[in-house]
Amino acid sequence: MKKYNVAILGATGAVGQEMLKVLGERNFPYGELKLLASKRSAGEEVEFQGKKFVIEEATENSFENINVVLCAAENYISEALSPAAVKAGAVVIDNSSAFRLNDDVPLVVPEVNPEDVKNHKGIIANPNCSTIIALTALNELNKYAKINRMVVSTFQAVSGAGVNGIKELDQQISDINSGKTVEIKTFAHQIAYNVIPQIGDFDEMGYSQEEMKMQNEGRKIFHNPDLKVNCTCVRVPVYRSHSESITIETEKEITPEKARELLANADGVKLVDDPASKKYPMPLDTSNQDLIYVGRVRKDISQDNSLVLWCCGDQVRKGAATNAVQIAEVLVKENLI
Amino acid sequence: MKKYNVAILGATGAVGQEMLKVLGERNFPYGELKLLASKRSAGEEVEFQGKKFVIEEATENSFENINVVLCAAENYISEALSPAAVKAGAVVIDNSSAFRLNDDVPLVVPEVNPEDVKNHKGIIANPNCSTIIALTALNELNKYAKINRMVVSTFQAVSGAGVNGIKELDQQISDINSGKTVEIKTFAHQIAYNVIPQIGDFDEMGYSQEEMKMQNEGRKIFHNPDLKVNCTCVRVPVYRSHSESITIETEKEITPEKARELLANADGVKLVDDPASKKYPMPLDTSNQDLIYVGRVRKDISQDNSLVLWCCGDQVRKGAATNAVQIAEVLVKENLI
Repeated sequence: MKKYNVAILGATGAVGQEMLKVLGERNFPYGELKLLASKRSAGEEVEFQGKKFVIEEATENSFENINVVLCAAENYISEALSPAAVKAGAVVIDNSSAFRLNDDVPLVVPEVNPEDVKNHKGIIANPNCSTIIALTALNELNKYAKINRMVVSTFQAVSGAGVNGIKELDQQISDINSGKTVEIKTFAHQIAYNVIPQIGDFDEMGYSQEEMKMQNEGRKIFHNPDLKVNCTCVRVPVYRSHSESITIETEKEITPEKARELLANADGVKLVDDPASKKYPMPLDTSNQDLIYVGRVRKDISQDNSLVLWCCGDQVRKGAATNAVQIAEVLVKENLI
Repeated sequence: MKKYNVAILGATGAVGQEMLKVLGERNFPYGELKLLASKRSAGEEVEFQGKKFVIEEATENSFENINVVLCAAENYISEALSPAAVKAGAVVIDNSSAFRLNDDVPLVVPEVNPEDVKNHKGIIANPNCSTIIALTALNELNKYAKINRMVVSTFQAVSGAGVNGIKELDQQISDINSGKTVEIKTFAHQIAYNVIPQIGDFDEMGYSQEEMKMQNEGRKIFHNPDLKVNCTCVRVPVYRSHSESITIETEKEITPEKARELLANADGVKLVDDPASKKYPMPLDTSNQDLIYVGRVRKDISQDNSLVLWCCGDQVRKGAATNAVQIAEVLVKENLI
């Protein structure tokens, strides 16, 4: 079996660590494995599948002989190093938002638009976590009846801010319960026992970056430049799974029964929709795995050709690490590396 | 100054206790004050404004000489006792949902439809908490341009389930952090570090009772039988303030600037809308007071004549106790008791 040399750029972060775990779980045929991070982390040892790996400092010269770079670094690092990786002959699967909307960069959810990887020029972008979760949930519905408009409210986990987000929730709850002063570092405000309607900075219309990603990235992934999305993104005191309350308007009616049938057979989706028995997706039940759970499917009683649903998915896994590894798998399957 | 004899029915619950507090804070001109609860609580002593009150068992004979009953009891208790209170000559302001949709029972948010109290036949209903919060926020917008449709996702505090809801969140967080097994009693699932898309039971279409209240009660309070609402109600691990993500469609355009002007001058509303400075309503900042905070006001980029906003309000106060006391104040002002 052919092996591929893999580098993880940003290997010490929450997503980077999960990428390593997912590569192992899914038996990705890796040969050489390079764990790259900032100078600060260089020299640290990581054990993976019984072997010890030493974290190396990521530089422009880190990518010789590498076939695939899984990039879990911030935008400015991806911008600085991804071109060098491409020049060295690697394909970069980039979880940052740096290149997502570039015309020559495919933006891929493997369940939705795997064929787009073929058009890559060296970089393939991994979409935003809430976008991946929503679009995986909606894909079969969109194929059956084109989605023209979405109204979305998100309930996003603290893991979206990485390891520090999780630590901050824990620290704040511990400080509150022991009567100490709450420190705010990672989020704009206290997240313990609170919800914060801000993820990213705001544009002049009043939408946050995270809110605009759903429309901008959704249009590209669904190949529907006319898709209209009004999104409100909210951080909630939950560890890892994002939840989304979604209303879709479709070009023809999808009955709830038809929607459930489509969702029950959709790739990457698990239908959990028996509210009378208190069964619906929740963050707690959907963490640490890869499926997007969908439930609360019902007719929108406020207009025709419109459905309401609720979905949850692990932000670190399908929302980031797993989706990136799945893209690498498509590259392997299609002989594109 | 004329005094009014007041009874609080369900005086030991979260809302009943808050009603007592609010009566004091707002200097309601009470004469006799009767605190009624179940047999179990009868005999307990409560201190209020320097006097001791003994909780009495609520029976059909509890309402002699009472002018106003503030009912914070469950539906079946209100159904059993409110008619007796009315027969004894009292006006019942009922926080349960038992009579809300009855034609001869006004359903009142004093900032929105105070004139409706005049039509009472003994019972005036206090609306559902999320409905009060949304409609107080939307009232001036609805007056300026009729709201035809609303899409709402709620982020509801555990206080909506009373004292037990608050205790359950605390107990679960404490148990989790000390490695104990989590007990689930009040909510359908663990609420700590989770969100639950269920408040109340579900109808055959898949909407929960709480979700349908927004449309059914909204129509009655706004005097708009054609109002269409698609609502998703979600419990979040927050103590007291509900948050709501709301999209409204109006019969003519309301620009965000106009909306902010209307909201800045709206009764019962505080506009907090400076997202660039990280200022927007949040549960933590809006608890233990009576105003509904509104922010994140923006044009709906997905359709015309449509606005998006975010509001928060204390569920126990404006969502229940304060609104009931405000109704009593309208009765006094209009000489209706």
